Amino acid sequence: MNAEIIAVGSELLTHQRIDTNSLFLTEELNKLGIELVAKCVVGDDRERLADAIRRAMGRSEVVILSGGLGPTEDDVTRDAAALALDRRLIFQTEVVDQMERRFRAMGRTMAEINRRQAFVIEGADMLPNDRGTAPGQWIEDAGRYLMLLPGPPGELKPMFTRQCVPRLSRVAPREVIRTLVLRVAGMPESEVDQLIAPIYTKFTNPVTTILAAANDIQVHLRARCATEAEAMQLLADAGGPIELLLGDRIYSRNGDPLEVVVGSLLKQHKTTLAVAESCTGGLLSELITAVPGSSEYFLGGLVTYSEALKIDLLGVSPEMLETHGAVSDEVAEAMAAGVRRRTGAGYALAVTGYAGPSTGAEKKPVGTVSLAVADAAGTRTVNRQILGDRERVRRFACHIAMDLLRRRMLGL
Amino acid sequence: MNAEIIAVGSELLTHQRIDTNSLFLTEELNKLGIELVAKCVVGDDRERLADAIRRAMGRSEVVILSGGLGPTEDDVTRDAAALALDRRLIFQTEVVDQMERRFRAMGRTMAEINRRQAFVIEGADMLPNDRGTAPGQWIEDAGRYLMLLPGPPGELKPMFTRQCVPRLSRVAPREVIRTLVLRVAGMPESEVDQLIAPIYTKFTNPVTTILAAANDIQVHLRARCATEAEAMQLLADAGGPIELLLGDRIYSRNGDPLEVVVGSLLKQHKTTLAVAESCTGGLLSELITAVPGSSEYFLGGLVTYSEALKIDLLGVSPEMLETHGAVSDEVAEAMAAGVRRRTGAGYALAVTGYAGPSTGAEKKPVGTVSLAVADAAGTRTVNRQILGDRERVRRFACHIAMDLLRRRMLGL
Repeated sequence: MNAEIIAVGSELLTHQRIDTNSLFLTEELNKLGIELVAKCVVGDDRERLADAIRRAMGRSEVVILSGGLGPTEDDVTRDAAALALDRRLIFQTEVVDQMERRFRAMGRTMAEINRRQAFVIEGADMLPNDRGTAPGQWIEDAGRYLMLLPGPPGELKPMFTRQCVPRLSRVAPREVIRTLVLRVAGMPESEVDQLIAPIYTKFTNPVTTILAAANDIQVHLRARCATEAEAMQLLADAGGPIELLLGDRIYSRNGDPLEVVVGSLLKQHKTTLAVAESCTGGLLSELITAVPGSSEYFLGGLVTYSEALKIDLLGVSPEMLETHGAVSDEVAEAMAAGVRRRTGAGYALAVTGYAGPSTGAEKKPVGTVSLAVADAAGTRTVNRQILGDRERVRRFACHIAMDLLRRRMLGL
Repeated sequence: MNAEIIAVGSELLTHQRIDTNSLFLTEELNKLGIELVAKCVVGDDRERLADAIRRAMGRSEVVILSGGLGPTEDDVTRDAAALALDRRLIFQTEVVDQMERRFRAMGRTMAEINRRQAFVIEGADMLPNDRGTAPGQWIEDAGRYLMLLPGPPGELKPMFTRQCVPRLSRVAPREVIRTLVLRVAGMPESEVDQLIAPIYTKFTNPVTTILAAANDIQVHLRARCATEAEAMQLLADAGGPIELLLGDRIYSRNGDPLEVVVGSLLKQHKTTLAVAESCTGGLLSELITAVPGSSEYFLGGLVTYSEALKIDLLGVSPEMLETHGAVSDEVAEAMAAGVRRRTGAGYALAVTGYAGPSTGAEKKPVGTVSLAVADAAGTRTVNRQILGDRERVRRFACHIAMDLLRRRMLGL
């Protein structure tokens, strides 16, 4: 069973606003085994919206509209839906009565224009709204299901959960959707794909998707089956060989990001971490401490942006900075050793590099980074040339640093 | 002239991901006087995408596709666009040459599957991509314009700005849309609205929108006119009285975020900044150093997550920590003074607080933060109770800290 979502409202077509109701609705639909195949945003335009509704209902069994149920001229959802279904709008006196009671309870008088909200599509079920004035509507049409929901998330969410989910679960086929997420560090997307395509292309179920961010590749395998057991079996059949091929490049099998994975390792080893950063400017500390409970293993970070602080706080020698430059494996190593010594942490990470947009008078190009991990056994350094803008270089470098720590802690 | 945006990718139909490229594209289109009338997300399905392209081109003069230009099996945008336009895909040897040079420059060998990215729609202009391997495409078809852009924002944005905007501005009708953005710190959204609504409700052009983030309110006034001069006049008529009312709460009149504003002040004063952070975990440093050229005034930051580091690196006394607790105005003041002394910076900021989700054994609630600014004249502290989750508390606290610095530097 397929679904489409149409968010209604010209404000959602500006650059300041984004529809997030669809994220909630998608999660709820997926739990019911219903797949979202498209979503769109349409402005407050009756004809255009009616057209979008017609097309969505022509393709998918479930169509959900959010927004445009208010009392003003530009609330066109009721009219557009009636037009698309070629049904009449019927004025429901009892809806007006409910709204008036609601206004009276708030000590206010209902404005005349609110009466517009009492028009209901012929044959629709009313969905009462206990958080606002706009009632929702549930319409069945030739084995298809159309829902009109209010736009404010605080009204839409309870209405959908309490009134639409039970109705949908009665009509949705008994299907289960389960996803396996493998997160991979240290390989470009194209290499991951080349490696695992011979396997995943043999399967139409699960469907495999590869997502790429800076140094962080996610392989999503999504199985749709009649039962949980079947879904898990299909995921094991396709996922098992993929996991073997990717091996220790996989850092997470449950969707956890790298900062959570290294945090768990640090907790398991009952050890601590400190970091020294230059080009990443605090981002590495920020990612690590974004994890609740990180104070258990994270002692702190030194953002040594100036050379003076590298010398003063981390004990990097002025001669080394002079000879090798601030962006060098030697300085990264000295920074990691320095912050470990300074803080007494079990592990230390250091990053130095040129995040851009310019490198000043340096000869090394933007995107050059040197990284180091230090522990009681010594120090290991790596360097990389990262492509992209300042933000991407910084994120990429932090991800490499955390993966360096992961590999060190696992003895890889 | 109307536009539609189609974001391509099954991952954008999951509950974890959202298309944000369209926000950037909308803003750029509006600057050209082109209005967005619909946007949608379509999964990696060739037929469905071709259908969406056909319909969008049937309704709107400008259609922008983002994503699905990668090298893998599920990158279907090229194929779908060719199908929708009924044109052939042509293999371009020079694109492969460019890609191979790019890979060689990184010291890597191009994977065979990357050759897929060299297929170009018959008659299309190639849009070179200097941030990634996927070139974009610009296609004219019976007076309509179709753009194929890569999905990663770091590739899409420069490609659109440098290569599509100039082309579009040649074909777009001469309407001018100009926006005045006033950014305000230290006032809740409802107070800002109550204060300025009597003015902005008198104008239908410009249209006023108020956007709220953690401690950061933006007032957008948007004028649509035939000429630049008219638009600027309308913005002055509505914006002037609003600026008077908001006064020194306004920290920026050109859209610049607070970290850019304080950076400019530090440069003007030819002085330097250092920060000491606890609950914000590096975020304050990260925000400040996200600004290119920040090394000119930012010396560094100490993320003193543990009490031991507050004592050792910042010289906070154990007795003070014992008496007042790590989250107190006294400790914030000592942290600011300590990091200023330690680094020799002209100004210092400090933040300590409970970001949540729990405060351990402490009596103070989650969201309690103490902040301090220090300069040669002394130290000033403030404390706040911030509502929201860990991420919001951290962002809010950083924004308060930077505004504290701004007000101190301006003598407010």
